[in-house]
Amino acid sequence: MIETISQLMSGGKRLRPAFAYWGYLGAGGDDSRSIVRAATSLEFLQACALIHDDVMDGSDTRRGLPATHRFFEALHTESAWLGSAENFGLGAAILAGDLCLSWADELLFASGLAADKVLEAKPLYDIMRTELMAGQYLDLLEQAKASAHVDSIRNVIKYKSAKYTIERPLHLGAKLAGASDEVLAAYSAYGLPLGEAFQLRDDVLGVFGDAEITGKPAGDDLREGKRTALIGYTVELASESDADFVLSHLGNPHLSRETIDAMRAIITACGALDRVESMISSGRELALFSLESAPITDEAKHVLANLAMAATDRKA
Amino acid sequence: MIETISQLMSGGKRLRPAFAYWGYLGAGGDDSRSIVRAATSLEFLQACALIHDDVMDGSDTRRGLPATHRFFEALHTESAWLGSAENFGLGAAILAGDLCLSWADELLFASGLAADKVLEAKPLYDIMRTELMAGQYLDLLEQAKASAHVDSIRNVIKYKSAKYTIERPLHLGAKLAGASDEVLAAYSAYGLPLGEAFQLRDDVLGVFGDAEITGKPAGDDLREGKRTALIGYTVELASESDADFVLSHLGNPHLSRETIDAMRAIITACGALDRVESMISSGRELALFSLESAPITDEAKHVLANLAMAATDRKA
Repeated sequence: MIETISQLMSGGKRLRPAFAYWGYLGAGGDDSRSIVRAATSLEFLQACALIHDDVMDGSDTRRGLPATHRFFEALHTESAWLGSAENFGLGAAILAGDLCLSWADELLFASGLAADKVLEAKPLYDIMRTELMAGQYLDLLEQAKASAHVDSIRNVIKYKSAKYTIERPLHLGAKLAGASDEVLAAYSAYGLPLGEAFQLRDDVLGVFGDAEITGKPAGDDLREGKRTALIGYTVELASESDADFVLSHLGNPHLSRETIDAMRAIITACGALDRVESMISSGRELALFSLESAPITDEAKHVLANLAMAATDRKA
Repeated sequence: MIETISQLMSGGKRLRPAFAYWGYLGAGGDDSRSIVRAATSLEFLQACALIHDDVMDGSDTRRGLPATHRFFEALHTESAWLGSAENFGLGAAILAGDLCLSWADELLFASGLAADKVLEAKPLYDIMRTELMAGQYLDLLEQAKASAHVDSIRNVIKYKSAKYTIERPLHLGAKLAGASDEVLAAYSAYGLPLGEAFQLRDDVLGVFGDAEITGKPAGDDLREGKRTALIGYTVELASESDADFVLSHLGNPHLSRETIDAMRAIITACGALDRVESMISSGRELALFSLESAPITDEAKHVLANLAMAATDRKA
């Protein structure tokens, strides 16, 4: 079990720890191994989210490797054990995610940061976890309701991604450094628009991304049937027959390469891709603008500006 | 989601909070609403374990109500939502369990107990969570390996039940009261044998229990195929043909009432039930004997003696 968790932890962009770390340094905290350890706790939280998400979505791969439940399913099959390999994989992955969720706050408290600062930051950490899970449930619900309204899609993005990936990690770092409410507000002004832009970039990559780089099969979000802002704008902007074509194929796990290309062509031609790209640019610009007046260190401003570019980059 | 969690929390024997509470008072802690809140955190941890366990086992009911995943599955069906109701139930239940796991340590820290005491107890809380999840994985593994050896079955019981249900809750209470290592050792001497006896009682009820009282269909453990100590001793003590009969029907979800009765008759006639009943008695006696010399308050001794009876009671 440790093996598969450490495999999972070996990949990824480590955005959340990076934002927590720079949130801490930006608010005047001193660099130390302790803040690195505390920031790493977010990678364990994210490991839980990914492991459980892959179970919920029935995904086969993650970061180019078998998803955790598939790893344990294969272990069961290879070992010729009794019972259903699928059930074994499901159970082991649920437990692996639970372990990661537990180890996340264990690491935060064992980081070596002053106990009073960790205690002050804990309620913020609690809010972040609850927002993450509520955001994921909201996502399940919106998918089940077949919602393709851009407003409700953006609401899911706010909780599932914008807060969880950027704003709250920055807040956690700030709280650990004992920062003022002004610093927290500045991090929100930077983090929320950037967080939305980050998720929109992820959505674009989920449809148009290179499998080599994303570690997921090309067009995976179309096969999974994710109702992203890209789909929302396609429904709004494309002709009825084109929109029907996209919606009728969305969520078919056996989509051919040709159908994926046809769906991509519609999403591009109707202007939905441009619309989302322009939202990404605006979000990033707003984040960068907010950063200028933020009451944080110049070094943190510089790094956070770079992170804003990295998080919304067209390639990764 | 809150509704189904609060439904789940409305039942059960609340053994873990009771042991944490009396572990605290027994070690000299003062009674307060704060220790009640801190002890209640274990009920949230247990809610996570139950919700995720029911998903892993594919159980339909819990405490006489639909299991959480079935609750959400029915919500999906009734609402005529899009996609698979089963997947929706699975996803929602995984998230509900994650929420409960998060809320457990949130409540511990928000209990109102002195922060330094909670911080001192946190590593113990962390060990308890990891032991629980490792114990559950060990259980999955032993079931998959079709293990029917009493030794390995007892090892699973140690981690999944004895430590998690009794020893660690007592330890948590003791740590929160700032107790000495002697108190912790005394709680282990009482808690481990009693914890095993508690699980063995649960195993007996899972085969012979009254559905009205357990909230689970009669003989549910036989349908689920649980390889309990009862089964381990049946394999050891019954004739080969009787043991084969039990093993061949174990885990068949469609067992008839007649077959369940025939399996029960074999488990009883071969002496396996008597053997397990005598282990339950010995465990309880050992716990009660250890209690006599424990360096804790007389009131706690009295209550813990009663809890030992309640946890191993033939009816509940």
